[in-house]
Amino acid sequence: MFNLEQALLYARENQAEFISSLKQFLKIPSLSRDEGDPQAIQQAATWLKQKLSDTGFEKAQIFETAMHPMVFAENLSAGPEALTVLIYGHYDVQSPKPLEDWQTPPFDPTIKGENLYARGASDNKGEVILSISAIESILQAGTLPINVKVLFEGEEEIGSRNMRDFLKTHKDMLDCDFCLNLDGGMAEKDHPGIIYGLRGAVTLILKITGAEKDLHSGLYGGLVLNPIHVLARLISKLQDEQGRIQLPGFYDSVRPVTAKEKELIAQSPKNEAYYLREIGTESLWGDPSIAPLERCTAMPTLDVALFQSGQVKMAIPSTAKAFITMRIVPDQDPDAIYEQLLKFIAENIPDPLTWEIVDHNKGPAVLVNYDTPYVELMSSALEAVWGRPPVFARIGGGIPIVAMLSTELGVDSIITGITLPDDNLHGPNEKIHLPTWEKGLEAVIRFFHSLSAV
Amino acid sequence: MFNLEQALLYARENQAEFISSLKQFLKIPSLSRDEGDPQAIQQAATWLKQKLSDTGFEKAQIFETAMHPMVFAENLSAGPEALTVLIYGHYDVQSPKPLEDWQTPPFDPTIKGENLYARGASDNKGEVILSISAIESILQAGTLPINVKVLFEGEEEIGSRNMRDFLKTHKDMLDCDFCLNLDGGMAEKDHPGIIYGLRGAVTLILKITGAEKDLHSGLYGGLVLNPIHVLARLISKLQDEQGRIQLPGFYDSVRPVTAKEKELIAQSPKNEAYYLREIGTESLWGDPSIAPLERCTAMPTLDVALFQSGQVKMAIPSTAKAFITMRIVPDQDPDAIYEQLLKFIAENIPDPLTWEIVDHNKGPAVLVNYDTPYVELMSSALEAVWGRPPVFARIGGGIPIVAMLSTELGVDSIITGITLPDDNLHGPNEKIHLPTWEKGLEAVIRFFHSLSAV
Repeated sequence: MFNLEQALLYARENQAEFISSLKQFLKIPSLSRDEGDPQAIQQAATWLKQKLSDTGFEKAQIFETAMHPMVFAENLSAGPEALTVLIYGHYDVQSPKPLEDWQTPPFDPTIKGENLYARGASDNKGEVILSISAIESILQAGTLPINVKVLFEGEEEIGSRNMRDFLKTHKDMLDCDFCLNLDGGMAEKDHPGIIYGLRGAVTLILKITGAEKDLHSGLYGGLVLNPIHVLARLISKLQDEQGRIQLPGFYDSVRPVTAKEKELIAQSPKNEAYYLREIGTESLWGDPSIAPLERCTAMPTLDVALFQSGQVKMAIPSTAKAFITMRIVPDQDPDAIYEQLLKFIAENIPDPLTWEIVDHNKGPAVLVNYDTPYVELMSSALEAVWGRPPVFARIGGGIPIVAMLSTELGVDSIITGITLPDDNLHGPNEKIHLPTWEKGLEAVIRFFHSLSAV
Repeated sequence: MFNLEQALLYARENQAEFISSLKQFLKIPSLSRDEGDPQAIQQAATWLKQKLSDTGFEKAQIFETAMHPMVFAENLSAGPEALTVLIYGHYDVQSPKPLEDWQTPPFDPTIKGENLYARGASDNKGEVILSISAIESILQAGTLPINVKVLFEGEEEIGSRNMRDFLKTHKDMLDCDFCLNLDGGMAEKDHPGIIYGLRGAVTLILKITGAEKDLHSGLYGGLVLNPIHVLARLISKLQDEQGRIQLPGFYDSVRPVTAKEKELIAQSPKNEAYYLREIGTESLWGDPSIAPLERCTAMPTLDVALFQSGQVKMAIPSTAKAFITMRIVPDQDPDAIYEQLLKFIAENIPDPLTWEIVDHNKGPAVLVNYDTPYVELMSSALEAVWGRPPVFARIGGGIPIVAMLSTELGVDSIITGITLPDDNLHGPNEKIHLPTWEKGLEAVIRFFHSLSAV
């Protein structure tokens, strides 16, 4: 067991060192998409493995997958009778584009005021370093009260496509009582949150091809079906003007929110005023009969995230490409939706155009059980630090491993985090709020301390 | 006067030198759009001015405009009683993007077989050098039978936006009996053509802006109107599925083709089989009750040439951009159509999205009088070289100066050219067919020789 005060003191006194370590980590441009440098992904994995070894983990190791490696380590010093937690995080990051919107270079971590700016600062390298720093602080003040396993992946931002296989083939190694997932976020500044529901996703990159090459519109305009027009019409038909998705029976399997959830939503600080402020807009879009928080967490949505075709020249482009993304909810079936989407595409691309799916990804939504002693203890730890109980909520994003752990290992996740709404996840000038990071570190240490009582 | 055989001999013997000069010219990446290097435009103008001076023109000079310079020169040695021709061409080129589709670098002119590959080879640097080479050949074999003025501009590919002002302010300098415009093309390989009609254009770059920054679709999906969706819907509404443009009364002022034109179209080698072959497709698109050649030359068309927004990441993009291009026909009014288009855009972009027109351009279609002695002589010259009379036709592209010369100076143009249908104007691997270039040179020399009889 460890001394709580001593661990918290160590954490406070070593804050600068922890942040210096985080900055090192943030300098590695570990993009998981094609456009990234594969060496950077390897470098980030290697860096993490070394970091874990230095922090008192045993067997820190890298597992190759079909794509980007997993980093795993464990400290089982609490013994076979003790509980085991699996700490999850990811070391891959989203693209920093468009670069011109960044005020400081995305991979040159920069502290301004209370914030540290860099791609990955809050999603999710900040939390990875937080969890390692918590273990380091605890080990400096005694021993771990429970066994700890850590799993950091490099494919979260591309849908954790090799995670399910990895879970299946390493069941014993990953065996645990619950998962601690710090890839969630705060309800608002100074108000912690625990997440019990996540949306799933169905995404695909569609490429439509017309003529073999771009054609001069003066010579051929009027004779050739323009892939931009076809793709624009397809996108328009996929939703009505209110954003309702037009696939047949799409909403049939949407599980309605419960009365208790309606209440949580009504009490949430994430009301209309909150969203207007966060988005910086004068009006929200979407069905006004459904609360904004419900719309973006418990209802499915569709966003075309990329449409790319052509040049600024008088030509009919040969190809057009779109990244079509859907966020789905319980109990929608991602496989069935993906198939419907393919059918819809096939029906809406006339000859002689051809099409292909360049890439795709899908995963279900999930609702985790939050009536567990672990969640109770985390709730208390958060309240001890912030002085108020956490908000329980669903979020609109997805963390693919949560559903996979549930179905493959029967393990529930505690999902919380320290990301603030203005931290610009996936956007330019991503940042982490350092005082909140420090509070999060304290909360995780307190949580571990309280686990000794379970 | 000059000796025809001597001039033709000189032209044949100096072919290699002419092409070497063309290659020098093609090495200058004189893109007229923003993405180009402004120095390259200046360099091309300066190179041309020097070339004209070297070829026996007087007063070769550069006129600055609000954007890219005009190059003008003249040889008035035929005297004030003689006819005067204005030779027109342009030294600016289209963007070479996408670069990866080029088999040889676009600005490293490369001869393979009978073709010379480079951006601008056929549009329009090849013809500029052809006209200069014709004058050089004539001057080596005597004197010019008529006065010659040349005007080469640097903005044809962006709609000749400063040409009208230039014509207005230099009326005396540009005074002439007719214009020789080699920016047309061949009906097919081994079959010359004379163009009597050109489509006009109305184009604009529309930029739609939503939130200040890209937003994580997990956090905000369902609350924010996505600029891609709005732009896709706008584009879909602008045309029906058959491509008919939906602006009110859009077709009312389209001048029907005459019975004589119907006959020309029916006789043209540009029939359905021709277009299927040239485009490399199994079926044409558009109203089957109208002949393909009529559809793409005498009917207005709309092509969105660029749609650009977002990244391959789960985000709602902040902005979306489209280059909307229309080809219009006699007697449509470009100003009225542009205003209608703006109105349509305003009506189809809901709050709180905003929009702006980043750039625009417009010019009318034109039908030139081809019942003139000059056209007759050009027809004979073409027939003398190719052994068959030229095809008279409208084309679907536009050459803005043709209409401007007609309205501002009352001057008709002879529009012909040596570009083959597979020369990939505006596309990758643009080329010029060198044996055809040589024939064109002979035809222009013959044409000048015949002018002495007028």
